[in-house]
Amino acid sequence: MSESKYAAAGVDIEAGKKATDLMKSAVKATYNDHVLAGLGAFGGLFSAKAFADMANPVLVASTDGVGTKTRVAARLNRWDTIGHDIVNHCVNDILVQGAQPLFFLDYVASSKLEPEQIATVVRGIAGACQAAGAALLGGETAEMPGVYQEGELDLVGTIIGVVDQDKIIDGSQIQFGDKILALPSSGLHTNGFTLARNALAEESWIDPMPELDQQKIGDVMLAPHRSYLPQIARLQEVGVDIHGLAHITGGGVYDNLPRVLPAGCGANILAESWEIPAIFNLIQQKGEITAKEMFHVFNMGLGMLIIVDEEEESLIRRTIGNEVVTVGEIIPGDQTVNVLGI
Amino acid sequence: MSESKYAAAGVDIEAGKKATDLMKSAVKATYNDHVLAGLGAFGGLFSAKAFADMANPVLVASTDGVGTKTRVAARLNRWDTIGHDIVNHCVNDILVQGAQPLFFLDYVASSKLEPEQIATVVRGIAGACQAAGAALLGGETAEMPGVYQEGELDLVGTIIGVVDQDKIIDGSQIQFGDKILALPSSGLHTNGFTLARNALAEESWIDPMPELDQQKIGDVMLAPHRSYLPQIARLQEVGVDIHGLAHITGGGVYDNLPRVLPAGCGANILAESWEIPAIFNLIQQKGEITAKEMFHVFNMGLGMLIIVDEEEESLIRRTIGNEVVTVGEIIPGDQTVNVLGI
Repeated sequence: MSESKYAAAGVDIEAGKKATDLMKSAVKATYNDHVLAGLGAFGGLFSAKAFADMANPVLVASTDGVGTKTRVAARLNRWDTIGHDIVNHCVNDILVQGAQPLFFLDYVASSKLEPEQIATVVRGIAGACQAAGAALLGGETAEMPGVYQEGELDLVGTIIGVVDQDKIIDGSQIQFGDKILALPSSGLHTNGFTLARNALAEESWIDPMPELDQQKIGDVMLAPHRSYLPQIARLQEVGVDIHGLAHITGGGVYDNLPRVLPAGCGANILAESWEIPAIFNLIQQKGEITAKEMFHVFNMGLGMLIIVDEEEESLIRRTIGNEVVTVGEIIPGDQTVNVLGI
Repeated sequence: MSESKYAAAGVDIEAGKKATDLMKSAVKATYNDHVLAGLGAFGGLFSAKAFADMANPVLVASTDGVGTKTRVAARLNRWDTIGHDIVNHCVNDILVQGAQPLFFLDYVASSKLEPEQIATVVRGIAGACQAAGAALLGGETAEMPGVYQEGELDLVGTIIGVVDQDKIIDGSQIQFGDKILALPSSGLHTNGFTLARNALAEESWIDPMPELDQQKIGDVMLAPHRSYLPQIARLQEVGVDIHGLAHITGGGVYDNLPRVLPAGCGANILAESWEIPAIFNLIQQKGEITAKEMFHVFNMGLGMLIIVDEEEESLIRRTIGNEVVTVGEIIPGDQTVNVLGI
């Protein structure tokens, strides 16, 4: 990454250069043959040859932030995980339409940028990009005193991927009786942190908790957002006919699953079919939150939902192993989701 | 724009819906035939048919923020201009490599999102996108109490454009004796606001200033960043052989012009060749800032530099009119810029 591609706005020049030096090799490691490095200086360049073999390539784009998960990172002064969060969140957001990542751009802003801190965040981003096969094509760091509170930081990412038009997954094939399978989340992922932080007193974050097998709340909250790209790619390789995918983010199953449900379809989710991770029970109990609200805010252990014909279930299990759980089915309905047993 | 494409994280659900309703028609107005609406729900979809006629299409991407210009907008409670700033800034950043905009994504975050305020910002973004022929393909709004200071807001944009590989403008044709022409800026654009706000006491922003022809400082500071797409597109249409383009942003001519200078080339800029806008003189005087620092932080009235062979000057003048000024020339050098006469 040339210095100019990774621009730093308003930052102390020396601090900006130091951060750039610290992250350079990690960023370069994400480059592939499609990145035309050294040609330009302002924007990142990516050759469309990367998808020249597709009949009707469609670009899929998504921008997102990690929300107030950054506040947990700030309290624990641990900056190596949130880069993975933002990349994996974005990877999953385009994956649900069947898209493969091409490249990623990031934005990190704070009241005062510390070179080591920023470099650690960007190295996390670069690592997750490399794992996803995405080039980290550009980025921006901004120092904005007076806008951000002291010691706080925001992290935003944009992903661009591609899918062949006739392979777009859009839920249109979903029908009554289809099964809803789930891949587990690693925890809160990047949603619900405002509510979680209200429920769990900050002073308790560094204490080992019996309810969490003696893990610290802070560490459990910071567990990085999982990418489901490897699993979904495997399913596509073996020819599983995926009717729909739902990435469970803010709004939980209630808001995210309907995005992919066609008119006339609803969904039943059976809450007893998987084990809800302990962190959610702890948040619910300490925050005195109703089960319904919990399912409206958190993923509750469901990271990615896969909707398929019943006949595909065994192939899916053989392909991506035991962690996949059947959690519900498609029913006649008005694009709403019922969570049963809560 | 479907509600789901324009996701709101952590926002009061009713506020999020209201903001979405308020901005919907403006966003839809940016759509063109290449936007595949209604097909998906998580990421925006854009057909590569938009550039199917290019021999070797190369995607050009850039992410940026508007910096602390948002603080001026907040003080004046005026939210209709900064959307234009972020889009036009990004448009210019990829324009310097010869790229045409395809689509744009935005991110708006604050401690508390006000639907009317966010909708006003996004309508500005949509208006500038429409003017640039870019689809506003997606966006995210985030409410992050505790990260942002009360009443403050950050605005981030990502643009994706395309250029045919053999038409990439990379400065490699620049040679000694080439002329440096400038298109004027509309003011500060989106850089140097931290320094400007330190120099000009906030209490004075709403007073008409004799030095500014009785305009208010706040209004002059908020003047939207210009897009140079129409002018550069016209030059390309009439066949001007552009050797290099430099978008003058943070770092001024000193840092931005060298990005496009090939090895062995330097540049002389003659400060007397154009009239420096009054706002910069006011900042310099009130802030007791050296001329050299001013040229290191601000654009000083130069929005876009165009580097061409001397013979192209008259065609450029005939094509884009009188506002273009010759401000310097390319000399032997080590990729550094001299500003003469300051």
